[in-house]
Amino acid sequence: MLAALNARQRKMQMVLVASGGHDEKLTDVLLAAEAQNIPIKRLPWAELDAMAHGTSHGGVLAICSAKPRTTEGQLLELLSKLREPPLLLLLEGVDDERNLGFSLRSAEAMGVHAVLIKKHLWDFDETDVARPASGAYERLPLVQIDDLDLLIKLQRRGLKLYGCLAGVKHSMYDTNLAAPCILCIGGEKRGISGAVRSICDQFVSIPSRPEPSSLSLSHASAILIAEAMRQRLLSAKSSLGIEPAPTTD
Amino acid sequence: MLAALNARQRKMQMVLVASGGHDEKLTDVLLAAEAQNIPIKRLPWAELDAMAHGTSHGGVLAICSAKPRTTEGQLLELLSKLREPPLLLLLEGVDDERNLGFSLRSAEAMGVHAVLIKKHLWDFDETDVARPASGAYERLPLVQIDDLDLLIKLQRRGLKLYGCLAGVKHSMYDTNLAAPCILCIGGEKRGISGAVRSICDQFVSIPSRPEPSSLSLSHASAILIAEAMRQRLLSAKSSLGIEPAPTTD
Repeated sequence: MLAALNARQRKMQMVLVASGGHDEKLTDVLLAAEAQNIPIKRLPWAELDAMAHGTSHGGVLAICSAKPRTTEGQLLELLSKLREPPLLLLLEGVDDERNLGFSLRSAEAMGVHAVLIKKHLWDFDETDVARPASGAYERLPLVQIDDLDLLIKLQRRGLKLYGCLAGVKHSMYDTNLAAPCILCIGGEKRGISGAVRSICDQFVSIPSRPEPSSLSLSHASAILIAEAMRQRLLSAKSSLGIEPAPTTD
Repeated sequence: MLAALNARQRKMQMVLVASGGHDEKLTDVLLAAEAQNIPIKRLPWAELDAMAHGTSHGGVLAICSAKPRTTEGQLLELLSKLREPPLLLLLEGVDDERNLGFSLRSAEAMGVHAVLIKKHLWDFDETDVARPASGAYERLPLVQIDDLDLLIKLQRRGLKLYGCLAGVKHSMYDTNLAAPCILCIGGEKRGISGAVRSICDQFVSIPSRPEPSSLSLSHASAILIAEAMRQRLLSAKSSLGIEPAPTTD
């Protein structure tokens, strides 16, 4: 809730708080709502229960718009203003809202600038995605992808599209992820679609132990983006004339 | 189930299969059970439901011992036989069985040889840990840690104990994780205990964007172990006289 208020992306109509006991944890939420002139209304806990998705609202709800999708125009503007090479994440065919939420959380922590999501993913209940994302759902620009047009447009602007596939020759370690790029992770069941595969600039693998061991979607995504961040830190250091950190003590 | 049979760590008394419709997915399980001379019994689905944890048994159950803990002696023997520097994971104070399960899954995929787990973690329902671990729970050696004794013993054998903490000076990138080491990840709420902190050889951080962004426990764990694997691949290549892979295309 605090993340949603601070991100200022949703239109907030009203904040509803359980009447009675005052919860100190809500102080930040109430201060943020007041600062933004959002009306605050007190209601019995049972009424909040009835209005909420589930019962884990913790005594506070907001009547607000859905998290708005970032438009293509907004994305291109965002990219043009970046002072570092763009790093985008494309999530294709994710079936589980927790996987999606956790992927967003790690993406934000590892420096992804925006996440591209295929149309049908917007069918998830927002709350189920937002909870595991721990605020990242509110803050990260999320762009709806309907077809390949936007991807091709981004490629023309110099972003490389890398599809993450198990077992392919190129590993993420010998791929330049410090340059402008879109990292694509496919869904739990079907992986990356044929359409997206057909326009990938390259496929990259995450080196790992052989089967039957495996990585879950959100963990593969976190490891791939973390490698992009490592390369970017290294390349920022070299461009400043600072020696790259040695990997031995 | 197939993972449990193939890992051969549990004592399997009997495999119970739903009578009636034959599920092709069970063929591998039935063949493995037969090969190990484990009796197979057919029961109505409703009886399986009544015996199972939950209803997601998919028509097959095993009557078996719990997954055995790897003893200190077995761990030391395992380490002495390794042909590469030991990489252990110490999980302290994990509160959520899914986080534990996913951490085990990534640990196996990223080459961890054994996982050390604090005593109280064994209170989880095995099934709830095993499911997100996707077989890794059956295959990975899991060692119960009651106090600091085993950790100190491992340190005397040359393993460094690295505690993962946010914001500390040393990053995982300038720490030698290719040498024998134990990587420690603390629980969701309290982090690494004071006792374990007091014997850590060094604290390491995962470089990431500033707050409020954050990584979940299992994703931080996956990223840290993946960095150890990257360094190990690099050091294996150099020792073979192969040039390390360039990070630019």
